[in-house]
Amino acid sequence: MSRDDDFRLTCPLPAGAGDTVQLAHGGGGRAMARLIDALIRPAFADAELDRRHDGALLALDGPAAFTTDSYVVRPLVFPGGDIGTLAVHGTVNDLAMCGARPRYLSVGLILEEGLPLAVLRRVVASMGAAATASGVRLVTGDTKVVERGKADGLFINTAGIGQVVAPVPVGPAGVEPGDAVILSGDIGRHGMAIMAAREGFGFETVIESDCAPLAEAVLALFAAGVTVHCLRDLTRGGLASALVEIAEAAGRAIGIDEAAIPVADHVLAACELLGLDPLQVANEGRFVAFVPGAEAERALGALRCHAPASGAVVIGAVKEAPAGEVTCRGALGVERIIDMLSGEQLPRIC
Amino acid sequence: MSRDDDFRLTCPLPAGAGDTVQLAHGGGGRAMARLIDALIRPAFADAELDRRHDGALLALDGPAAFTTDSYVVRPLVFPGGDIGTLAVHGTVNDLAMCGARPRYLSVGLILEEGLPLAVLRRVVASMGAAATASGVRLVTGDTKVVERGKADGLFINTAGIGQVVAPVPVGPAGVEPGDAVILSGDIGRHGMAIMAAREGFGFETVIESDCAPLAEAVLALFAAGVTVHCLRDLTRGGLASALVEIAEAAGRAIGIDEAAIPVADHVLAACELLGLDPLQVANEGRFVAFVPGAEAERALGALRCHAPASGAVVIGAVKEAPAGEVTCRGALGVERIIDMLSGEQLPRIC
Repeated sequence: MSRDDDFRLTCPLPAGAGDTVQLAHGGGGRAMARLIDALIRPAFADAELDRRHDGALLALDGPAAFTTDSYVVRPLVFPGGDIGTLAVHGTVNDLAMCGARPRYLSVGLILEEGLPLAVLRRVVASMGAAATASGVRLVTGDTKVVERGKADGLFINTAGIGQVVAPVPVGPAGVEPGDAVILSGDIGRHGMAIMAAREGFGFETVIESDCAPLAEAVLALFAAGVTVHCLRDLTRGGLASALVEIAEAAGRAIGIDEAAIPVADHVLAACELLGLDPLQVANEGRFVAFVPGAEAERALGALRCHAPASGAVVIGAVKEAPAGEVTCRGALGVERIIDMLSGEQLPRIC
Repeated sequence: MSRDDDFRLTCPLPAGAGDTVQLAHGGGGRAMARLIDALIRPAFADAELDRRHDGALLALDGPAAFTTDSYVVRPLVFPGGDIGTLAVHGTVNDLAMCGARPRYLSVGLILEEGLPLAVLRRVVASMGAAATASGVRLVTGDTKVVERGKADGLFINTAGIGQVVAPVPVGPAGVEPGDAVILSGDIGRHGMAIMAAREGFGFETVIESDCAPLAEAVLALFAAGVTVHCLRDLTRGGLASALVEIAEAAGRAIGIDEAAIPVADHVLAACELLGLDPLQVANEGRFVAFVPGAEAERALGALRCHAPASGAVVIGAVKEAPAGEVTCRGALGVERIIDMLSGEQLPRIC
C-alpha cells in the first residue's frame, strides 16, 4: 500500500454517497443486508455466519474462557497494522492470557455515517486475515451506524471464547514468591508507533507496532509442561501497569531489573526525546508470564521457538512482601518504586 | 425518577470534571482502575469480575450459542427502559432465539469524555438489574474513553453465551410449509416510544417500550415439547424485515393475516399520524416462532404463561412457494406483498 493510500484510509473525507457508509446501512433493512452480504460476510467467510441467524452455534468441550475489548484506536491504520488486526489480536491475546486456545470471536461494528467503504473493506479484510492467522473463527456479528460526528470513523468490539488448556486457573491469585517474571520481548513499540503516526513525528527509523497474536507462544508453555501461575498481556499502561495490577491483586511484591528489559534503540531514543518512560508505553504483542523460578529456563526455551516471543527474557522475581509493591533496580543499583500511570499517557492507543 | 432527572440523564451537559468521564478514565492506569472498582464492578457484582484477570472462566456443558450486539440508542433513557436494559435484554433475546438458555454476558463500554458519571451509574445499575432478572451473569468487560465529540455519550456492546436446549438447531433452515407463524404480542411500541421521546411528540398516552427479556417464554416452548423450527426477535426493521429475512433464508413463502396482528390503539394512532407502517416499526420485546401447524395450540398455551408473551397469537402460515415472498391479507381480503425497509426508518432505535 502506498503512502497516499495510507493517508486516504486514515483520513476519511466526504465522498460520493455510493462510496461511503450511510445511515440506511444500519437500519435493519435492504441496505444493511446488502452491506453485510457484499462487504462484511465474504471477508469473514464462516459457515456459522452463512446461517443468517441471531447467533452462532459452537462446539466447545470442557472449560471455556470469555473476554471482550472495544477498539477505538486513532488513526485507523498505523505502521504494523490497523484497527482490524488489533481487534482480532487483542481479544485472541486476552484469551491466551487465560490459558485458553482462542476458538471463536464475535464482531460488533459501530460505523460513522460517511466512512468510506474502502476503509471498511480494508479493516474487515484485516480482521479476516488476522483471524485465519490466529486460528479463530469470526462467527457472529452486528453492525450499527451513527450520524456523522457521533463517532470517529469506526469502532470495533470483539468478544472471544477459548478452550481452556491450563490445568489450573491462570491469574494473579496463582502468583507465588520465588516466581520468575518473564517478559516476551522488547517493549514500547505499539505506543510509540501510534504516537508517531498520529503526531507526524519523523523519526529516522519508522517504528512499527508490535501488534501480534500471542496464543501459540503461550500454548507452547503448557505443551512443555511449565507450571504457569499468571499471564498478562501488556496493553494500555504498559509493563508498569501490568506488574502493579498483578502485585496488588496477588498481594505480593515484584522486583525487576531495568537492565534486563529489552527496548529497541529507536524506541528508546523516541521515548527519551518525548520524556516518556518505556515501562509505561503501550504494547499489543507482548506479555509477562509468572512461572516457578526453577522452571524459568524451560519456559524460555518453549517461548523462544515462537516469533512474537523469540526475545523472551527473565526480568525479575516475585517476593513475599510488601504486598502490591513493584520495584525496579536501575543500572547503578538504585531501586525505584514503579507505579501505574495515574491517568492517560496517550488516548486511544487500542 | 422525575421528568427533570430524565431530562438531565438524556441530555449530558458539561459539568465539573469530578462528576464526568475524563480521558484518563480510559488510560489503563489508576483513574481507570478507580472508575471500574468504584462504579462499574459493584453494579455487576460477579465473582469472575473480582478475579481481575483478562477474561472470565465459564462452566459450560454441551453445545453453546454465541451472539453480540452494539447499542447506540438515542436518547439514552426512554419510557420503559434505558440503553443498559436494552443492552442486556437484546443480547439475552438473541440467545433465546438460538434455542439457548442465556448464561454469560460480556460488556464493552465506549464512553465519551464529559459523560456525567450519574448517567453511567444509572446505566450500569440498569444492566445489573436486567441481568439478574434475566438469569445471566456479567462476567467480563472493557472500558474505553474517546474525546468529547467523538462518540455520543455512551455506546455499549454486549456479547452473550447461552447453553443450547433446543434438540435440533433453530433457524431459517428448519422452516417448513405448514408451519404456523406465532407472534408473541402487540408490535411497534419500542420504535414509537423512541420516536416520541426523541422528537418530543406529546401523544395523549405515553408509549412505553416493549423492551423485555424473552428467554423464559422461549424456553417454555421447549419445556412443553413443542417442535420449534425457527425463532426471531423483532428489532430494527420490525415484523416485516424479520419475516422477509426468514422467508428468503428458508426459500419459502409466508402468508400473514393483517387482522390477526395485535397493535395497541395508541401505537396505531401514532403510526397513522406519522404515516408509518406498524409492520416496519422496531420492537425490543417481541418475537416470532415457527412451529408445525398441529403444535400451534400447544405453543400458544406455553407462551401465554409468561408475561412478555401473554398476548401470543397465530398470525399466518408458511407456504411452499414462491421462495422469499411474504404476503399480508388485509381486512378486505386483498393480499399485498410485504418487503423489508429499503433503508432507515428511524436511526438508532437500539
